[in-house]
Amino acid sequence: MGYTVAIVGATGAVGRTIAAKLEERNFPADRVKFLASARSAGTRVQFRGEDHVVEEAVPEQFDGVDIAFFSAGGGVSKGLAPEAVRRGATVIDNTSAFRMDPHTPLVVPEVNRADLQGHSGLIANPNCSTIQMVCALEPVRKKYGLERVIVSTYQAVSGAGAEAIEELGHQGADMDGRGKSDASLLPVKDASRHYPVAYNAIPQIDSFGKDGYTLEEWKMINETKKILGMPELRVSATCVRLPVVTGHSESVYFETGDPAADEAGIRAALEAAEGVTVLDNPADQLYPMPLFAEGKDDVFTGRLRKDPDVPGAFHLWVVSDNLLKGAALNSIQIAEALIADGAVKGEGADGTRQHLDGNGHAVR
Amino acid sequence: MGYTVAIVGATGAVGRTIAAKLEERNFPADRVKFLASARSAGTRVQFRGEDHVVEEAVPEQFDGVDIAFFSAGGGVSKGLAPEAVRRGATVIDNTSAFRMDPHTPLVVPEVNRADLQGHSGLIANPNCSTIQMVCALEPVRKKYGLERVIVSTYQAVSGAGAEAIEELGHQGADMDGRGKSDASLLPVKDASRHYPVAYNAIPQIDSFGKDGYTLEEWKMINETKKILGMPELRVSATCVRLPVVTGHSESVYFETGDPAADEAGIRAALEAAEGVTVLDNPADQLYPMPLFAEGKDDVFTGRLRKDPDVPGAFHLWVVSDNLLKGAALNSIQIAEALIADGAVKGEGADGTRQHLDGNGHAVR
Repeated sequence: MGYTVAIVGATGAVGRTIAAKLEERNFPADRVKFLASARSAGTRVQFRGEDHVVEEAVPEQFDGVDIAFFSAGGGVSKGLAPEAVRRGATVIDNTSAFRMDPHTPLVVPEVNRADLQGHSGLIANPNCSTIQMVCALEPVRKKYGLERVIVSTYQAVSGAGAEAIEELGHQGADMDGRGKSDASLLPVKDASRHYPVAYNAIPQIDSFGKDGYTLEEWKMINETKKILGMPELRVSATCVRLPVVTGHSESVYFETGDPAADEAGIRAALEAAEGVTVLDNPADQLYPMPLFAEGKDDVFTGRLRKDPDVPGAFHLWVVSDNLLKGAALNSIQIAEALIADGAVKGEGADGTRQHLDGNGHAVR
Repeated sequence: MGYTVAIVGATGAVGRTIAAKLEERNFPADRVKFLASARSAGTRVQFRGEDHVVEEAVPEQFDGVDIAFFSAGGGVSKGLAPEAVRRGATVIDNTSAFRMDPHTPLVVPEVNRADLQGHSGLIANPNCSTIQMVCALEPVRKKYGLERVIVSTYQAVSGAGAEAIEELGHQGADMDGRGKSDASLLPVKDASRHYPVAYNAIPQIDSFGKDGYTLEEWKMINETKKILGMPELRVSATCVRLPVVTGHSESVYFETGDPAADEAGIRAALEAAEGVTVLDNPADQLYPMPLFAEGKDDVFTGRLRKDPDVPGAFHLWVVSDNLLKGAALNSIQIAEALIADGAVKGEGADGTRQHLDGNGHAVR
């Protein structure tokens, strides 16, 4: 018997990609409920060749749901995810709402799958930029150790949603009129200033937090430490939005602390890593680029080279589809890991399960 | 009495900008000769309200020339710049041909103007990415010292010439067809593979050199050490081409080695620096961006913040117009400094000058 799955934020860029990937991967779902805000309710979406009507995400929708994917913004997750958990669903939340909560596992299955054990019904999916970086760093850490990371990002607009893609399309159509186009979304929809992203580079993603860093930069710093289980790791980040539709790129500097670490060894570790593809041949001009990572599941790595001055330190270029491994795919991989490990809530290793209603009573 | 000036590469993106800036700055030129390859000879250019015919750059053209600006590629400079010098011209070369020659000064006037003294007729203008970075780093170095630099660049296509701007225009017009557009110029015109730059990020600028670094990256590493006069400085670079028309951006990490260095002190040093504008107010979303640096002379700095882990280390976002301070403007500022310092070749501090023909004889 398969699972009842809910997608909250079903009309958004990530929600649509989750549905597409569930279908493509033959995820064991008997039923999928498409949920969104009242504004988007009534929209029709295609799934397994059939039309489905998107319904409003209200607490009662989660009765009988086994696994709920949330990607409708932090506010929706804060309000509804605990309701869904209370009703027996295991929630995989793609917002930043619970990521740094010490009781919520923050998981990239290839890196810290063991953290799923003993969860309380809520698992957080990390920030897109963080996921692809830790996928590349974990094989290095396991082999040589890891002491320091400095990353500068080159991020796509689809990370800011479907509207941002549309706006880039309008702005990009007229290079000669660059800078004069309307801008109403980036860098932050609710902020007071908006800048065109076409033919530009905006060094702000999300709002500014403390010490001059943006929240996106703090996410990369703090989530990396949590996922790798290294609170003492030295990490810093600069996050920049670019006129790229989909595919985040990262210029990553890392110190292993092991002077014996060499390029061949790092390359071998990356080549052996699950979900990582090495695309690195300067002589043939082969390296990852966002335009060619779009639509692909893997994290692509290239431009690996020794730092000229610091033994055991390297530079790496890391590219991945921010809607796939950065969001939808990783969320589904978390669900698949939960299923394989018998860790979906209310489900024993024997496959039996029960759901609870809002009052904690079994509903089946 | 003013100077006779030659512009070699007068039809290119940098050559045209040099002419425009000579005019705008009332450069003391009695006569300007517009020179280019045989292919471009005959083209007409506007200068001081008059049409000028571009002539072929051959050695004889430099007889009687006081100052020659070269920006027609390294091959042309290697062949013709020594000829121009032999004929008495002071050459300011905007290519990489002579930059690392130990006998050739490599100059950013705000940083190492003193290196102009005792030149032998040839002065090299640094790489665009290097110029804007050292403008930002020198005030820091003077105040606190400098031990280490790690830079990731976000570079505009105009650094690859006027044709690259046109190609981006075609590619950018159709976001939905991204990746399917013709690409015949970037990353390197003569290389075997070309990639679309629109809606992409290409982690290759110039050819690959040794150790997996590109020549652009080695330029940033080696030129920075030479200009700052710090052969022991630890520098590394990752250079990336973006769908931006004009304006290079850089994410710069630097260690001063002085644990007492603080943001306020760095900011004060940048604010006091000639040619540097600080645009840095997170609360008001103010930071430099290439779209707004285009056409402006200054090097813009912002997003200054302490590294979270290393005392005396900081992150800075540096943006400048790569055709202006990165090329044409810096070349003209070198010429202006030579004039002010009485260091134009064959010219004494009393303003008298003489030119030599190809045989070393005075021609006037």
